[in-house]
Amino acid sequence: MATLADYSEETRAEVKQVREIVASLHDQLLKWNLVVWTAGNVSQRLKTADLMVIKPSGLRYEYLTPASMVVCDLDGNVVDGAASPSSDTASHCYIYRHMPDVYGVVHTHSTYATAWAATGKNIPCALTMMGDEFGGEVPVGPFRLIGSEAIGEGVVETLKKYPKSPAVLMQNHGPFTIGKDAESAVKAAAMTEEVAHTVWAAQMLGGVIPIPQQDIDKLNDRYQNVYGQH
Amino acid sequence: MATLADYSEETRAEVKQVREIVASLHDQLLKWNLVVWTAGNVSQRLKTADLMVIKPSGLRYEYLTPASMVVCDLDGNVVDGAASPSSDTASHCYIYRHMPDVYGVVHTHSTYATAWAATGKNIPCALTMMGDEFGGEVPVGPFRLIGSEAIGEGVVETLKKYPKSPAVLMQNHGPFTIGKDAESAVKAAAMTEEVAHTVWAAQMLGGVIPIPQQDIDKLNDRYQNVYGQH
Amino acid sequence: MATLADYSEETRAEVKQVREIVASLHDQLLKWNLVVWTAGNVSQRLKTADLMVIKPSGLRYEYLTPASMVVCDLDGNVVDGAASPSSDTASHCYIYRHMPDVYGVVHTHSTYATAWAATGKNIPCALTMMGDEFGGEVPVGPFRLIGSEAIGEGVVETLKKYPKSPAVLMQNHGPFTIGKDAESAVKAAAMTEEVAHTVWAAQMLGGVIPIPQQDIDKLNDRYQNVYGQH
Amino acid sequence: MATLADYSEETRAEVKQVREIVASLHDQLLKWNLVVWTAGNVSQRLKTADLMVIKPSGLRYEYLTPASMVVCDLDGNVVDGAASPSSDTASHCYIYRHMPDVYGVVHTHSTYATAWAATGKNIPCALTMMGDEFGGEVPVGPFRLIGSEAIGEGVVETLKKYPKSPAVLMQNHGPFTIGKDAESAVKAAAMTEEVAHTVWAAQMLGGVIPIPQQDIDKLNDRYQNVYGQH
Repeated sequence: MATLADYSEETRAEVKQVREIVASLHDQLLKWNLVVWTAGNVSQRLKTADLMVIKPSGLRYEYLTPASMVVCDLDGNVVDGAASPSSDTASHCYIYRHMPDVYGVVHTHSTYATAWAATGKNIPCALTMMGDEFGGEVPVGPFRLIGSEAIGEGVVETLKKYPKSPAVLMQNHGPFTIGKDAESAVKAAAMTEEVAHTVWAAQMLGGVIPIPQQDIDKLNDRYQNVYGQH
Repeated sequence: MATLADYSEETRAEVKQVREIVASLHDQLLKWNLVVWTAGNVSQRLKTADLMVIKPSGLRYEYLTPASMVVCDLDGNVVDGAASPSSDTASHCYIYRHMPDVYGVVHTHSTYATAWAATGKNIPCALTMMGDEFGGEVPVGPFRLIGSEAIGEGVVETLKKYPKSPAVLMQNHGPFTIGKDAESAVKAAAMTEEVAHTVWAAQMLGGVIPIPQQDIDKLNDRYQNVYGQH
Repeated sequence: MATLADYSEETRAEVKQVREIVASLHDQLLKWNLVVWTAGNVSQRLKTADLMVIKPSGLRYEYLTPASMVVCDLDGNVVDGAASPSSDTASHCYIYRHMPDVYGVVHTHSTYATAWAATGKNIPCALTMMGDEFGGEVPVGPFRLIGSEAIGEGVVETLKKYPKSPAVLMQNHGPFTIGKDAESAVKAAAMTEEVAHTVWAAQMLGGVIPIPQQDIDKLNDRYQNVYGQH
Repeated sequence: MATLADYSEETRAEVKQVREIVASLHDQLLKWNLVVWTAGNVSQRLKTADLMVIKPSGLRYEYLTPASMVVCDLDGNVVDGAASPSSDTASHCYIYRHMPDVYGVVHTHSTYATAWAATGKNIPCALTMMGDEFGGEVPVGPFRLIGSEAIGEGVVETLKKYPKSPAVLMQNHGPFTIGKDAESAVKAAAMTEEVAHTVWAAQMLGGVIPIPQQDIDKLNDRYQNVYGQH
């Protein structure tokens, strides 16, 4: 098996930096109330080698440190780290192998996003911030058992059908989000829960006013292409 | 382009003070759960010059400091600041130019206020605190695309129809609130979310008992004119 | 007008202690999410004189200190304190004058309790903790305008009909709670919101199983008379 | 009556350690919003003697320390501690005496779990995390009065019918959870509230897609037997 010593100095320096980024982004999952106990995981793919840094399995949030993060190759083999990687590692790997522009993946069971996932209903696009971030509704993906890359397959298959959405709600399970780095994927996870909660509350009042598709497209185009600093 | 050096010493002193006020009021948006990630923005107009201080675009809340706030003129031209101003700057400017008594503007996507906005329904006046703060129902404003002053126009047009309300819920978007300074506008944003949540919960139980208009008027008159210290 | 100097040394010592208690109990209102911005107020009646200590009007929670609390007589005249007392002072006074066993009063606009208040419906007794704390349903009191002792009258009138309940939900307004001291009244305010939220959520699932009155009575008797240390 | 001095040095050392564990786990009840005021209690059974460590009755969370925890034998007699043990002590004892593999018990009134308990409806299994943790639906147990071991009997009777579930929702009362130690039982309490909230929200959208029993069994088997590090 490979170890970090088999990689370049540049890669070892990137690992050090990405361990810090990934560990600290787990605090954002807590801050925005996206996780309970040990649920949820963040990973980031490296730029300098086919490796990723991911949360260890089953460790409580108060014990997460840069050093406890696990480095894996994109087949899920551990390259560096004392603990086992998250039980969702195979799915993170599958996403990175099949979506070459993705460098960050996040999975949570955040409450309202997961509620939509349990009903099998896409979140309708009724908020300008959904036009901005998701370019339309937030899709539900297929039901898949945990523990193999089957979930990753379902995520990729669904996101290919909804190319503007950085989020998919895996049926009966919870949201996966992607981004150009781990921070973007965490932002998408926070926005997914927020729009899930807001549209849920609006549905309770008797239903939302949908936004016309042409306006959704204008919102998304401006946000993704013009609003550079977000 | 003008820079701060073109303004009086008095204005430069006011800018320094208002940068601190506006930066610290963003903490209140977090404290009262009105924002997620980088959403939400606060501005305050200056007393000594036609300038305002507003949040920079897309910066995470933990990185906001007085120095990162942006100073603009009332057409949105940056006069001082390293970052771009909030993407809602044009709307803040429009409000200040058309409502000369307003010196504070806040925009959020707070959950329950935005849920009402997604349904297009005004929040009915069923709470004495709504009589106090809003003088009646909280109105929904028109649907407008993001990025120009069209939103500001919709805000002003709606508030002119509801002159006692410091809040308008822009349809499919979220609340804008105004005040005699930024703190008053932040207070109105917090109250808007609170009454949106409370009346929403009451509606779920089968509907509210409305407050008669004459009692709403008495509440509002006492609160705005007698209860000086609020 | 009387000042603190007109009172005994013992009373001046009690005032000092009760200022600290009342100031610190306002932190509990925040901790249990019972208040937004400056809403909510706590008072405690003194044992050694017909005085009470109450929150000043309109001061943000981060600025509340023992020194900022206001000392009033039971007609609401300020005896010591730099700020005006809470705008609910007349109602606190009315309660103390008409319920001689009450030494603590709390008022909030906590979300779910206020939602029930907006519907005019008592909270049905469907939780053992309601049997314990409230001895039955939590009653709604009459609609009253703010600013006179009319609210206090409505509180007392309702609590006399529900002698086991330390809480009344004033219609379209929010909860008032009482206790043998301010801490007991704050506890009742926290429990009121908790049972309001829980029974609300249960109603959304299709309705609660009521607890038979004889079991409510057994719960209440044990809790109030046996479970001494609560 | 026995005192700690009657026990071995090994047991006295274990008591010291378990006092710290149990006190600190009460912070987790607060962190995950499972309790209000003094509600909720955690206990852990010792390995070296038929004793348990449990929260004192009626003490506010900010005053809980290892030293304030109470040591009881499994009939509820106090062996060490200045305060009375939790009023739920008899039920904790009953569970330990009748479920010899259980070394941790937690009781809360967490909002959404208690809402389901007030309706008498089991939480349907519609989430993969429910398959993992509960092996199916979360059951409601019988209505029982507080203060004797009757609640403990109801807990044990229900858990024997649902042997994969670490949680039971006592009707009109709230959840009890068990585990191989107090931390496992606290984890189960946090997960119970999370799935109660999520499935509740999904029901509001019109109902959940149930997970087929064979898939629930596969999820539970993998989680309990393969996923060692959780």
